[in-house]
Amino acid sequence: MSKLIKLTTVPISYYNAGFLVVLTAPSGAGKTTIRDGILKLHPEIMYSISTTTRKPRRNEANGRDYFFVSGNEFKDMIKNDKLIEWAKVHNHYYGTPKDFVKKHIRQGKIIVMDIDVQGGINIKKRFPDAVFIFILPPSFEELEKRLLERGTDNLKTIKLRIENAKKEIAMMYNYNYIIVNDEVEKAIDETEAIIIAEQRKISRNVDFYKGYIK
Amino acid sequence: MSKLIKLTTVPISYYNAGFLVVLTAPSGAGKTTIRDGILKLHPEIMYSISTTTRKPRRNEANGRDYFFVSGNEFKDMIKNDKLIEWAKVHNHYYGTPKDFVKKHIRQGKIIVMDIDVQGGINIKKRFPDAVFIFILPPSFEELEKRLLERGTDNLKTIKLRIENAKKEIAMMYNYNYIIVNDEVEKAIDETEAIIIAEQRKISRNVDFYKGYIK
Repeated sequence: MSKLIKLTTVPISYYNAGFLVVLTAPSGAGKTTIRDGILKLHPEIMYSISTTTRKPRRNEANGRDYFFVSGNEFKDMIKNDKLIEWAKVHNHYYGTPKDFVKKHIRQGKIIVMDIDVQGGINIKKRFPDAVFIFILPPSFEELEKRLLERGTDNLKTIKLRIENAKKEIAMMYNYNYIIVNDEVEKAIDETEAIIIAEQRKISRNVDFYKGYIK
Repeated sequence: MSKLIKLTTVPISYYNAGFLVVLTAPSGAGKTTIRDGILKLHPEIMYSISTTTRKPRRNEANGRDYFFVSGNEFKDMIKNDKLIEWAKVHNHYYGTPKDFVKKHIRQGKIIVMDIDVQGGINIKKRFPDAVFIFILPPSFEELEKRLLERGTDNLKTIKLRIENAKKEIAMMYNYNYIIVNDEVEKAIDETEAIIIAEQRKISRNVDFYKGYIK
């Protein structure tokens, strides 16, 4: 449990602008744990479900983990501009459905998405008002240590991951915020603090402001 | 005690940019309680001490509550551009010393200041990177109720305060954030969240970024 206040304690009549929160981190920096931590603390925050052409794994459900579609359906989505961004990874296509995100932002929802830095930059072109958070390991040494301890990759893959991390981190100036994940509970709190702050930006509360001075 | 994480838990090696936090609120909106709450939670955050020509009250100490100066000293400060802003209130002069703020920002300190909306706008001209937070009562009805309960003003003064509040609130679009103070502990947490978020802005961490990618 985080020690931060709950967004749910805030009356619906103010701070009701929806927006997108984009989390990016090099492999091993703890992005998934932070994302899951935020979603657990705040059931009112939505997770942006990706669309993919790969087959569901065991325990994966359509509409919860991914929207599973055929290759032709995916091509149609590209053609009809139904994806905010998409990429091909290991012969499968992955994309972010535009309607899902737009609908929920309009309804005043906060939507969290995790994506690589290139995907994040593409999102920014379509959603300049989104909140871009880059999560960093405390150091490259620590990142290497974590990847070794995880034990899922061989040494060659770990070296490749660290090289990729360096390339990703070099692009983080495209983002709004950095969080150094030296302790995961703290990093979750810091992510939550950024969401709370963004919700209170005057630029996201123009209607409330107009109602107040009326 | 707030439930938020402490800024002090964050290692000094990152997020070490100093900045100014400007709190503004109409009379009765709870600005002083929020400011004191933040300073109590975070002894590492400094309070920007004003300079004044008025005489110290009982229990007021020079260099803690105010810097007490003579009229001539104050005029010299204006002449030598030693004040970020100043104003005359009830025949006394009040101002914000520039050296105090600049020195501590350079040292990486966060400085909290409370000031009226016009003063805040003047601060913005000198410190565009400061964080401007406007604290609102939940409604004008609630503000009136609080001022009545406080019992320090007569009805005519309360009406004047509410008229002033309306004028101040109409100018809040000059600020970065709004906080609706419907519950003071929550408002303190929200102020803290904004400070934590601002500390993690990429624009305040350029040196850290350069060190990381080096």
